[in-house]
Amino acid sequence: MLSHQRDLTRFIGAFVDELAKSGIRKVVVSPGSRSTPIAMLLAEHPHIKTIVHIDERSAAFFALGIAKSTNEPVALLCTSGTAAANYYPAIAEAYYYRVPLLAITADRPHELRDVGAPQTMDQVDLYGKHVKWFVDMPIPESSEKMVRYVREVCSRAVYTAKARPFGPVHINFPIREPLIPDLEDPQKFSAGSRKHVPLSIGRKMGTDEMLQSFGKDWPEKGVIVCGPMEYIDENFQREIIQVAKKFGYPILADPLSNLRSGSLEKEEIIDTYDSFFRNENVRHGLKPEIVIRFGAMPVSKPLLFYLQDHQDVPQYVVDGGMGWRDPAGSASQMIYCDETAFCEMLLNSIDHSSMRPKHWLKRWVKMNNRVKKQLDVISIDDLSEGKIAHQLTELLPDQACVMVGNSMPIRDVDTYFHRTDKSIKLLGNRGLNGIDGIVSTALGASLSEEHTYLLIGDLSFYHDLNGLLAAKQYGLKLTVILINNNGGGIFSMLPQAKHPSHFESLFGTPINLSFEYATRLYGAKYEKVETWSDFSNAMEKAKTDEGLTVIEVITDRRKNAEIRRRVMEAVVQEIDYLE
Amino acid sequence: MLSHQRDLTRFIGAFVDELAKSGIRKVVVSPGSRSTPIAMLLAEHPHIKTIVHIDERSAAFFALGIAKSTNEPVALLCTSGTAAANYYPAIAEAYYYRVPLLAITADRPHELRDVGAPQTMDQVDLYGKHVKWFVDMPIPESSEKMVRYVREVCSRAVYTAKARPFGPVHINFPIREPLIPDLEDPQKFSAGSRKHVPLSIGRKMGTDEMLQSFGKDWPEKGVIVCGPMEYIDENFQREIIQVAKKFGYPILADPLSNLRSGSLEKEEIIDTYDSFFRNENVRHGLKPEIVIRFGAMPVSKPLLFYLQDHQDVPQYVVDGGMGWRDPAGSASQMIYCDETAFCEMLLNSIDHSSMRPKHWLKRWVKMNNRVKKQLDVISIDDLSEGKIAHQLTELLPDQACVMVGNSMPIRDVDTYFHRTDKSIKLLGNRGLNGIDGIVSTALGASLSEEHTYLLIGDLSFYHDLNGLLAAKQYGLKLTVILINNNGGGIFSMLPQAKHPSHFESLFGTPINLSFEYATRLYGAKYEKVETWSDFSNAMEKAKTDEGLTVIEVITDRRKNAEIRRRVMEAVVQEIDYLE
Repeated sequence: MLSHQRDLTRFIGAFVDELAKSGIRKVVVSPGSRSTPIAMLLAEHPHIKTIVHIDERSAAFFALGIAKSTNEPVALLCTSGTAAANYYPAIAEAYYYRVPLLAITADRPHELRDVGAPQTMDQVDLYGKHVKWFVDMPIPESSEKMVRYVREVCSRAVYTAKARPFGPVHINFPIREPLIPDLEDPQKFSAGSRKHVPLSIGRKMGTDEMLQSFGKDWPEKGVIVCGPMEYIDENFQREIIQVAKKFGYPILADPLSNLRSGSLEKEEIIDTYDSFFRNENVRHGLKPEIVIRFGAMPVSKPLLFYLQDHQDVPQYVVDGGMGWRDPAGSASQMIYCDETAFCEMLLNSIDHSSMRPKHWLKRWVKMNNRVKKQLDVISIDDLSEGKIAHQLTELLPDQACVMVGNSMPIRDVDTYFHRTDKSIKLLGNRGLNGIDGIVSTALGASLSEEHTYLLIGDLSFYHDLNGLLAAKQYGLKLTVILINNNGGGIFSMLPQAKHPSHFESLFGTPINLSFEYATRLYGAKYEKVETWSDFSNAMEKAKTDEGLTVIEVITDRRKNAEIRRRVMEAVVQEIDYLE
Repeated sequence: MLSHQRDLTRFIGAFVDELAKSGIRKVVVSPGSRSTPIAMLLAEHPHIKTIVHIDERSAAFFALGIAKSTNEPVALLCTSGTAAANYYPAIAEAYYYRVPLLAITADRPHELRDVGAPQTMDQVDLYGKHVKWFVDMPIPESSEKMVRYVREVCSRAVYTAKARPFGPVHINFPIREPLIPDLEDPQKFSAGSRKHVPLSIGRKMGTDEMLQSFGKDWPEKGVIVCGPMEYIDENFQREIIQVAKKFGYPILADPLSNLRSGSLEKEEIIDTYDSFFRNENVRHGLKPEIVIRFGAMPVSKPLLFYLQDHQDVPQYVVDGGMGWRDPAGSASQMIYCDETAFCEMLLNSIDHSSMRPKHWLKRWVKMNNRVKKQLDVISIDDLSEGKIAHQLTELLPDQACVMVGNSMPIRDVDTYFHRTDKSIKLLGNRGLNGIDGIVSTALGASLSEEHTYLLIGDLSFYHDLNGLLAAKQYGLKLTVILINNNGGGIFSMLPQAKHPSHFESLFGTPINLSFEYATRLYGAKYEKVETWSDFSNAMEKAKTDEGLTVIEVITDRRKNAEIRRRVMEAVVQEIDYLE
C-alpha cells in the first residue's frame, strides 16, 4: 500500500468509525468524485447506512427530516463546489429550528484553492453564521497523533450538533488524488490506543435566585404558551401539564408543540386561540397577570397581538437552548433553564395540598369549546382547505406523523386541527418557514415513522419535486395530501390581494401544472379528488397502501380565502355576543 | 399618504429607477411577501421586465444564463429566509466564472433580527466571500439625502458587477410592514436633483516595462492556449488570431473560448489536443519554448499535463480580471492586462514586414488534421455520446447557441466538437462545474439567442427539472438533447469504476426515470430516439419547432466508456506511428 493511500484510508476511516461510535447511524450521500474515499468507507462501515440522493438540496432536507423525527444527528456528505452550496437552505433551517446535522464536504487540497482549479470554491466558513462549528481538516495523515485528532474532531462535531441548542456543524475535508482508499486495509477503522471520548451533558437547572426573582406568589390569571418545540420530549409534556393543572393556567398550544394530540391529559390545552384572539375584546377580556412561554414563537399572529397587548404584565420566556425568542418585544424576563427542570422547580415550589380554584381556567376552556363548535361549521363546506385540516384527526390513523407545509397548511392546521387522543405527531420546518425542501423533510421522517403524511400546497410541492426521487429509489411510504389551489394561496389573505394590477403575476403566480405527470415520473399512486367523499375514501385507502401516494385536492384560492374570512367573521361575532 | 408609505415608495422606487438607469433591463423575481414593495415597483417601471420564477435556485441560474448570453448584469429578487439561501449555488458559480449578477434580497428590519421572528435569518454577508460587494441597506427613508444614497448604492452595485472581474453583488433590504407601496405617487421614481453618475472604466494596458520583461525576441516555438472566456469578445478573437498568424503560434482553443466556430480565420486553431496530448511522446515532441495563456483553465486534462510537463519554459498567464489561474502550478509570469490590449501590444512590438516561417505551426496543423481524421471514425458508431458531440456542427443551424452540461457533455464537446464556419456559440458553467442549474442557465440564455440548444446528461437534467417551468410559463424556445445513460457516466472513466462493490450505488447511481413524464409536466414536445437517423430527423424537425423540445437519447454508460477508450487508443497508436 502506498503511503498516500494508507494515510487516506486510515484518516478517513477513523473519522467514519468515530461517526458510528458517536451515534451516527445514517448518512445521506450525494455522489461526487472528490468525496470518493469518504463515501466508500461509509458504505463499508458495518454500523452506518448510506442513503444516496442526487440533488444535494433535497438530500440535506431529507437528512433534516430524519433528524427531526428521531432527534438524533444525521450526517450529510457531498463533493466540492456548488454541491456544498446546495446544502445551504437546509443548513440554515436546521440552525434556526435547532436540528442536529453534520455536513461533511469534500474539498480540493490547499494547493488547488483559488488558483482556478476545477470545481473548487472557498469552502472555509461556507455556511457563515449558520453552523454551530466549522472545521477545515488537514490533509489526511495516518500517524497515531492525527488519527487521534480526526477522531476528536468527529465526536466533538457530533456532540456539538446534539448539545443544546441543537444545530448543524460543518466539517470540510481537503483530499488529494488518487482518491481510492484501500478497503482491504485491516486497520482502516482502527482507533489505535485511543478510546472513544463520550460527552456528558449536564442539565441546566433552575436556581434559588431564579425562583426568588419570580416573587412569592403566583397570580391566579396565568397563561402558559407553548410554541413549536425542536423535538417531542415526553417528560416535558407531562410536567407542563402538571404545572397547568396545579396552577390552574391554560396552555395555549401551538400545533408543533405536539400537545394537542396523544394520550396526554388535555383539559388545560387551548387550541382555538388563533380564532378567538382575532377579537380585540376577547384579547382584552382575557388579560393575564402572567405569561410563561416555552418553545419557539407560535405560528398564530393573533397570539402575537395578545402578547403585545399585554406587555405590561410579566412575560417569562423559558429557553434551555439560550436563544432570544421575543419577536413581540414583550418579554419581561429571559430564563435559560431546561424546560422540564423549570416545570419541576415550579411544581416543587408550591404547596401541593391546596389546589387553586379554576375560575380563570374555566373561562378559557369555555371559550375554547364554544369557538370549537363554531369552527366545526367548516365541516359543512365540501372539501375546503380548512376542512381538510379540521378533519385530519378523523381521517388519520393512530401513530400517524404529519409533515405540515409552510404558508397556508401550517396556518390551517393551527386554526382547525384540534385536540385528539389519537397519537398524531406534527412536524414542520418553522426555523425559516420556507416552502422549499418540505417533500424531502417528510420523506426523511418517513424512515422512522409508522405512517407519514405530508400536507402541502402546490407551489411548495413543485419546489421540492426532486425530493420524490428518494421515495422511488428506497420504496418509502408517504401519503401526500396535495392542496392544489394553483398558486400562492396565502397572498389572498394579505394586503397584496387588494392590488389587482400585479397580483396574479407577482403573488398569485398560478403555475398550471398537471401533477399527475410528476407522480408518474416518480412511480407514485395518484388520485385527484374533487369531492369530500372521494377525498375521505382516498385517505382510507392510503392507510393500507405501501409506497408513495399523492392525493391531489383541487381548491380555489379566492373561494378558500372567502371561506376562511366567513368562518373567522362568524367566530368573532359569536364570541362578541358571548362576551 | 402615510409617511411610512412615502418613505417605502420613494426609497425603493429610487432604487428601482436607478437599476434601469444603470442598464438593468431584466429582473428575475421569486414571489414572497417581504419583497412586495420591490417587486411591485419593478413591475411598474417602464424600462424593466420582470420574469417570475418560483424556485429561487432555478431563478438564480436563469438570471445567470441571461447574463452569460448578453454579458450584461441581471438582477434577482427574492424574499427573506431560505429563499435567499437558494441563490447560493448560482451566486458561487457567477463569482468563479465572473458573471455579472445583482442579488436583491428582502429582509426583516433590524428589530426583528435574531429574536425568533418568522422567516428571519442573518442575511448580512449571506454569500460570504462569493460576492464582490455586499450592502445591508438602511430602513427606507425618503429624504433627499437618503434617496441620493440608495441611488448611489444601486448604480455602484451594478457597475461593480460589471467591472472586471465581473461577478455577483448582493444588496439586502430590511423592510418594515405595511409592505404596500403607493403606486400612484408621482414621485415614486423621482431622482430629485440627483443626476445618474455613470462609471467610466479604464482599460488595463500593457506597459513598456511589461514588454521588456518578455525579452527581445519571441522564440519560434510558441503556443497560445485559450481557455473558457467569461464572454465572447470579438475584438479579442480577432487580435489573438492576428498574434497567432504573425508569430506562427498555434492556438489551443478550449470549446468555451468560442474560437472553434464562426467566420473567424481558423488556420491556427488546434481543436484535437485533448486527444493527441494523451500520448506522452507527442507532449514531449511538441515541446514549446513559450506558452501564452488566456482565459480560465481549459477543460482538457491532457492539456494540463502538457503544461506541467513543460514547466521549464516560460508560461505567461494573461488575465485582465486579475485572478491567479494556475492550477498546474506552471506559470512563470502573471500578466494583469486587458487581453485585447495585450494582443495589440504584441502586434505592435514586432516587425510586420517579416513573416515568420511556419514550420512549427505546420507540425501542429498536420497533427491536428491527422487526429481529426482518426476521430472521424466515431461517426461510424451509431448514436454514441461522442458522435453526437462530433456531429453537432452538422446538425445545428447557423447562429445556434449550445449550453453544454458538465461532467461528460463538456468533455465530449472538447474532444469531438471541431472547427466550423457556422456561428455556433457554446456556453458552459465552468466556474464550479456543477451539474446543478444547467437547464435554467440554458433557458436564461434562450431569452436573447436565436435558437438555443442544451446538451445534458440525465442526472444533471433531473437536478434542474424545476427550471423547465420557465419554459412553460414564458413559452421559451429550447431544444434539449438529453443523453440518458441512466446515471453518472463520468465515473465509468475514473478509477472508481475498478471497484465494483460500491460502484453502482455510490457512483453509477442509476435513477431509472421516464423523463417523458417530466416533459409532459412542463408541456414539452418529446421524442425518444435510439438510432442515429431518428436522432438526426428529430434535430432537423426541432429547427423549426417553437417552444420546448426534449430529444432523449438512450445510451449505455459502460458501452460509451468502451467506445471512448477504443477511439482514444486508436488515436494514441496512430500518432505514435506518425511520430
